Amino acid sequence: MPFTTLAWKLWALSVLALALKMLVLALLTSRQRLAKRVFASPEDYATQGMAEKRERDPDVERYRRAHRNDLENILPFFVVGAIYAATQPSALGAWLCLPGFALARVLHTVFYLRGAMPHRTLAYGYAYFATLWMILASAWSLVA
Amino acid sequence: MPFTTLAWKLWALSVLALALKMLVLALLTSRQRLAKRVFASPEDYATQGMAEKRERDPDVERYRRAHRNDLENILPFFVVGAIYAATQPSALGAWLCLPGFALARVLHTVFYLRGAMPHRTLAYGYAYFATLWMILASAWSLVA
Amino acid sequence: MPFTTLAWKLWALSVLALALKMLVLALLTSRQRLAKRVFASPEDYATQGMAEKRERDPDVERYRRAHRNDLENILPFFVVGAIYAATQPSALGAWLCLPGFALARVLHTVFYLRGAMPHRTLAYGYAYFATLWMILASAWSLVA
Repeated sequence: MPFTTLAWKLWALSVLALALKMLVLALLTSRQRLAKRVFASPEDYATQGMAEKRERDPDVERYRRAHRNDLENILPFFVVGAIYAATQPSALGAWLCLPGFALARVLHTVFYLRGAMPHRTLAYGYAYFATLWMILASAWSLVA
Repeated sequence: MPFTTLAWKLWALSVLALALKMLVLALLTSRQRLAKRVFASPEDYATQGMAEKRERDPDVERYRRAHRNDLENILPFFVVGAIYAATQPSALGAWLCLPGFALARVLHTVFYLRGAMPHRTLAYGYAYFATLWMILASAWSLVA
Repeated sequence: MPFTTLAWKLWALSVLALALKMLVLALLTSRQRLAKRVFASPEDYATQGMAEKRERDPDVERYRRAHRNDLENILPFFVVGAIYAATQPSALGAWLCLPGFALARVLHTVFYLRGAMPHRTLAYGYAYFATLWMILASAWSLVA
């Protein structure tokens, strides 16, 4: 097992948990498309034996916005978190920024899909500032 | 050459192949925009000496959907695959999950651009389950 | 400090700079949404005490296009750059491809938000060819 420090282990488990969360979100989006019978491509309508619709569905779009927000926030974390883990952070910092980020982003998806405000903004903000902290702490460690 | 195990080497080559595939898709999208004369920004129309259009083009949108699907699936793979490679998988697992994933995603793009169903869904599904497998196998290796 | 070679250090600092740039862009998008009073979700309008609007705002869409272009180009760079850094590139190559890429992508965002053409295309092109170079040089190093 090559992840020998606490920070590396927390990073790897956080990445895996969030990648799994994104796979689940993709599946829920497909389920929503099937339930609302709204698809992305003409050939998907053909597969369902339906005529093509051009309008979008607000519920499907909600899932897609949650997914795009994941791309904007979770994917940079995957690499920023690795650099942070490599700079030998404190145990407290590692717990708050790695599984802390992962938990905040799981909650962000739950709150987004339920339309829960301001909960969604709070979860977004925690993950945002954890990323900002990791960037600044890692840069300091690199240039100091 | 720092990639000393088979899994690391397969991971690195799979990432490079897929990053190249994404560069090609970006180029094909630009070619499609030029062919259909549909652009994303007002200044792009000005550069082409055209009046701005507001409607979207179905062919350009197809390329953009294929690209977004790559962001959702290939980019998480880049990091999940690295964690998986670090957990010393079997040679069979490494071949099926790393270049196997890459091949499935190259085919996914080809099938998406041609509107080939159910081929696109099969390619998507292979890559989806390869990612799921890498997440579960890596997590098991990390906590066991 | 674990980033012992020049290329690794330049890679890490380039990733951190670009991740920070993406956080700033997200913040600017929120500021633009508040200024134009155009939001993504019904509950965001409710939070602002407004009735929901369905139309999109061209300025908000410009920020979102710049952000999506980052997802398509910066996020693959994070991992391609790591593989390139691991293949012990020359100092010149490392400077041109790692902080050179980062600078080009910061300028890309500035030019995109200002609608500056052909500046935006030039910045995009530099980063595109730097990525292509890293892919080819790394692949050569891996198979040679």
